This record gives sequence, C-alpha cells and structure tokens, in this order.
Amino acid sequence: MKPMKAAAIAHPNIAFIKYWGIRDEERKLPSNDSISMNIGCLSTRTSVAYDPQLTSDTLTLNGERVEGEPLSRMSQFLDRIRKMAGANLYAHIDSENNFPIGAGIASSASAFAALALAGTAGLGLNLSEEALSRLARFGSGSACRSVPGGFVEWRTNEDTGESYAFSIASKNHWALVDLVAILSDQHKQVGSEAGMLGADTSPLQAARIQDAPRRLELCRSAILNRDFDALAQVTEQDSNLMHAVMMTSHPPLFYWHPQSLAIMLSVRDWRAEGIPVTYTLDAGPNVHVICLQEAMPEVLSRLRQITGIIDVLKGVPAGPARLLQPY
Amino acid sequence: MKPMKAAAIAHPNIAFIKYWGIRDEERKLPSNDSISMNIGCLSTRTSVAYDPQLTSDTLTLNGERVEGEPLSRMSQFLDRIRKMAGANLYAHIDSENNFPIGAGIASSASAFAALALAGTAGLGLNLSEEALSRLARFGSGSACRSVPGGFVEWRTNEDTGESYAFSIASKNHWALVDLVAILSDQHKQVGSEAGMLGADTSPLQAARIQDAPRRLELCRSAILNRDFDALAQVTEQDSNLMHAVMMTSHPPLFYWHPQSLAIMLSVRDWRAEGIPVTYTLDAGPNVHVICLQEAMPEVLSRLRQITGIIDVLKGVPAGPARLLQPY
Repeated sequence: MKPMKAAAIAHPNIAFIKYWGIRDEERKLPSNDSISMNIGCLSTRTSVAYDPQLTSDTLTLNGERVEGEPLSRMSQFLDRIRKMAGANLYAHIDSENNFPIGAGIASSASAFAALALAGTAGLGLNLSEEALSRLARFGSGSACRSVPGGFVEWRTNEDTGESYAFSIASKNHWALVDLVAILSDQHKQVGSEAGMLGADTSPLQAARIQDAPRRLELCRSAILNRDFDALAQVTEQDSNLMHAVMMTSHPPLFYWHPQSLAIMLSVRDWRAEGIPVTYTLDAGPNVHVICLQEAMPEVLSRLRQITGIIDVLKGVPAGPARLLQPY
Repeated sequence: MKPMKAAAIAHPNIAFIKYWGIRDEERKLPSNDSISMNIGCLSTRTSVAYDPQLTSDTLTLNGERVEGEPLSRMSQFLDRIRKMAGANLYAHIDSENNFPIGAGIASSASAFAALALAGTAGLGLNLSEEALSRLARFGSGSACRSVPGGFVEWRTNEDTGESYAFSIASKNHWALVDLVAILSDQHKQVGSEAGMLGADTSPLQAARIQDAPRRLELCRSAILNRDFDALAQVTEQDSNLMHAVMMTSHPPLFYWHPQSLAIMLSVRDWRAEGIPVTYTLDAGPNVHVICLQEAMPEVLSRLRQITGIIDVLKGVPAGPARLLQPY
C-alpha cells in the first residue's frame, strides 16, 4: 500500500517583481509575471496524514486546532489533490511556521507549497517540480514561487494559460540577505488574496501591468549579473508601484505604517552613501531590507537605531520545497 | 503719467485635483486640468515699484535682499510684463509671506499671482482676470489658480492651447477649513517645478493623466453639491495618485515624511468614525487636513495629539488676488 502520510518544508519568498492582481480567477492566472527569492531560515513545515477513520479534514496550525476559513481553504486545496489521485480520504494537516503569519511575509506561499508537496506525496503522487508549482498556485498564487529553489520566475503563457514558476538561479548564485524589519506581528486587516481582487479599481493598475515586462527584464538581468544597484532600483520601483496601486484602489489599501516609510527613506539614504541595500514591502507593514551579505552588520546596526522595529528576521536565499520524514 | 508703483495680495491655493506634469514647457501647458481652493489667512503681499534710476531688478523677500535664482525667476517674469506694456523700466520688488515658503504650501502660486497683478498695475496695465491668470501661469503653473477667487478650475483647451483658471464657486459657497499640519518648515530638496519635469519618467503618469477627466468631474460635482464625502474620496485618491507618480519616477521623489503618513492614516480613521475630514498633500511633507468648519475644534484637538506636528495653520476659502495701497 502507498504511504498515507508525508511531511514537507517550504520557505516563504520575497518578490522583487510583485504579483498583484488576478487576470483569470477561475484558472488563477496572475495579471503579470513576477520574480522572487526564497527566504531561508524562515519556513513552514507541514505534515498531511490521510486517515480512513476521518469524516472531514482537520487542521493544527502552530500547535492549535483551527477551523473556519483557514481549514476550509486548505481542505478545498486537498480536494484538488484527492481528485488528482482518485482518492477519497480526509486528512490531519499539521502545519508550523517559524515566523509571524499574515504580516506581509508570504506565509500562505510557504504554507501552500508545503501542503502541495506533502498532500500529494501522502497519496503516493510524485509530481514534477513544474506540476507541483502549478498545483500550489491554486492554494495561493505566490505559493507557486516557493516550490522551486533560489531565485525564481513565475511566468504565464498568454496563449495556453500555462502558469508556473521555475528557478532562474540557484540559492548559491548570489549572497544576498533579507533582513525583515518587523513593525507589527498583528494579522493584517485585508489579506493579500482579498486585497488584490480590488487591484483593477485603481486607475494605475493597467499601466503597472503594461510596464511589467520592462521591469522583469531589468530584474532578471540584475540577478543574473549580480548587479546590486540595478536590482535595487527596479525592486524599489516595483514595490512602490504595487503600493501605489493599493493606495489608489477603491477602497484604498494602506499597508505601509509610518515607520515603514521611515525605514524606506533611511534605506535610500544609506544606499546613496554607498551601502548595497534596498527595500521592498509585500502586503503588510514589515520592510524587507535586502543587502549584500558583506553589508549585513552595518545595516543591522543602523536598523537597530530606528524606533518601532520589534524584531529583525534574517533570511538568505533558500532551496526548493522538499519532503521530510513525517513527524 | 501712469502710476509706477502698485501692490497686490494673493493667497496660496490647495488643489483637490493636482497639477503635476507639463505637456508643453514653452507654452506652460499642464498635462492635466486641476481644481483648487484659495486659502485665506495665508497670503503673499507684493509691491512692485518701477524706477528709471535702476539698472536691474531688485528683490526683497520677507525683509531680506535676495539675489540668484529667486530674483532671476521674478525678473524674467517682469520681462514678460515689460514687453506687454512696451516699457523698459527695472523695478524694486518687495514680497512678504505670512507662512513658510517652499514646504508644500503653494508659495510660488501666491507669489506669482501677486506679482502678476502688482507688476502689470504698476505699469498701468489693467488686465482682465482671465488675462491675469494666463499671465501668472508663466511665473508658476499653479499661480494661475490664485488669481480668481474661491473654488477654482484651471482648464486648458486642447485645440487652441488657451489655458487659464476661473472660479467655479465663490469663497462663501462652502464653509471648509484647511488645517495645514506643518511637519517641517525646511525648504524642500526638490522644488515642484523641477520635480514635475520628471513626471513622465513614471510608468504611471500617463494613466494618471488619462483618468483626470473622471476625477475633475467628480470633484467639481462634489464642490457644487457640497458633498463632503464625495470630495474626500476623490481628493485623497488624487493626492495618492500624484504621490504615486512621484515615488515611481526616475529618480523617485518622496515628499511624504513618516508623520505625513501617520496623519493621513489618522484622517481616514476619523472619517470612518463620521467626522467630515479629508487630507491632501502637495509637493511637501505638510498635510492639508480639510474639514467642515463645524468639525474644526474636534479635528484640531485630535491633530494636537499626533507627535511631530510643529504648527497648524488655519485657512478658509479666500477671494481673488487684489490690489492694495502700495506700502
């Protein structure tokens, strides 16, 4: 008999070129392609144990039993896997994050990448990385980027609708560090998936999408050539573009806190001084301060002088989602 | 002989629909139409004394003799007036502001509106409001909006290039108050006129311009119908749109300070509570907190609880630029 239990680990990712807006809700196709880096040290570990005794799925999240929306979202995702495998078994899902969830770190990305891998392996399915990435996308768009390792591009074929992420460079390609300045570990008021449904209400979204190929090209080249200054410029512009769309949507979404802006302005000043450092923000107030490894001590010491930062998480480029021994 | 000296007063204005970007530098045509309100209590008083003894123009600004760029800019503007009048006389310009200049309050708007009026009257020219507005535009774009009184629209005819501002409602039409929360009285690093030359480097500027007719229509109706909530929504969106363009230009321009954002977020919360209050920011960190007169005491008391505000200026809708007895 095939194994009924599997466990996997996946890392959140931070996008240099953001995903914001859905072109096709049914097929989960994004409005634009995106580029990200998996963040090591931060991770989600998920085990899925299919059990013939169960009459519904159950979810333990960070040690606590959870029902409602988080469970039903994961359960719907497992339905998709059950259909692929032709199996009709409910499961115990046990998921642990080592970082705050719902606060602008892509917790749903690592969660659904890990769930896709453990959920399929538990039913004996052995999907290719590409198929796994495609599957993870239906749990949370950016989860498809947490399946491959290192520096990742998520691309959609306009004609076929094929949409999945793949590595453009390995985790060892470039010694970047992501210092995540945590301003708040409270769960944000409007989640990413809900927020981006309003993206098209901004008069700026179409222009942001139309300009995306230019930014993707700049970002890809900057990564492949390890050109930090080029990466910084396009990363900051892309982050500003996404937040510009958010702030001009109906209703407007402000994810920045005043201290987020204080950090952004400081990072710009520091780079003007010659320190290889840049910033980017996902749908939350925490600032991803990304620098070359050699600059980390200096950047950390400067971050410590900014008020309002309650913690700094450190991440380096990380590998793909992978199977673990079940726990 | 015609009078050789004249003095005028003009008020700065705060735009609900912003001017940002120049379509035709030579003819000083803006990229989009705009709507503003003159701000009473704040004013610039300027006297212009033409003197056959002078061999060049002189400028006294807030009691101090000034040369360099401020003088040459005013002097070039007087050249235009001298040409109109067929006169060849230099002048003493004496200009006083009762508010900090160059900090996101439209000091150049009131300055050039007053200079246009005093400068022409001093040479015996008696221009119509329309002609004066058109003239003031060449000193500083938004100065054309400080010529007519009350609530003002600056419109450009696409075909003829005719471009001037006119009243859409008098100062007594609607009892609004502009509480200008001053965060910094330092002169900004990049002035508006220089900053907006980079507007077209933002991937968002074209979309902002293209959407302007919709916002102008919403804003004009909100003013004419005294619909505060409608005014608030379009005013905040328009301010966010302009700053979105600024922050995504090459190089990016950040005029917001962290405490600007703190005020913006507070104002949104207060309005959600039912207080008729909104915000808008020009090219500077200071926040124009605009409310109905009846809400002023409450809004003022709440503003006093926000750290970082060094002063609050109060302005009510004001009349047009007008002549004074020379001083």
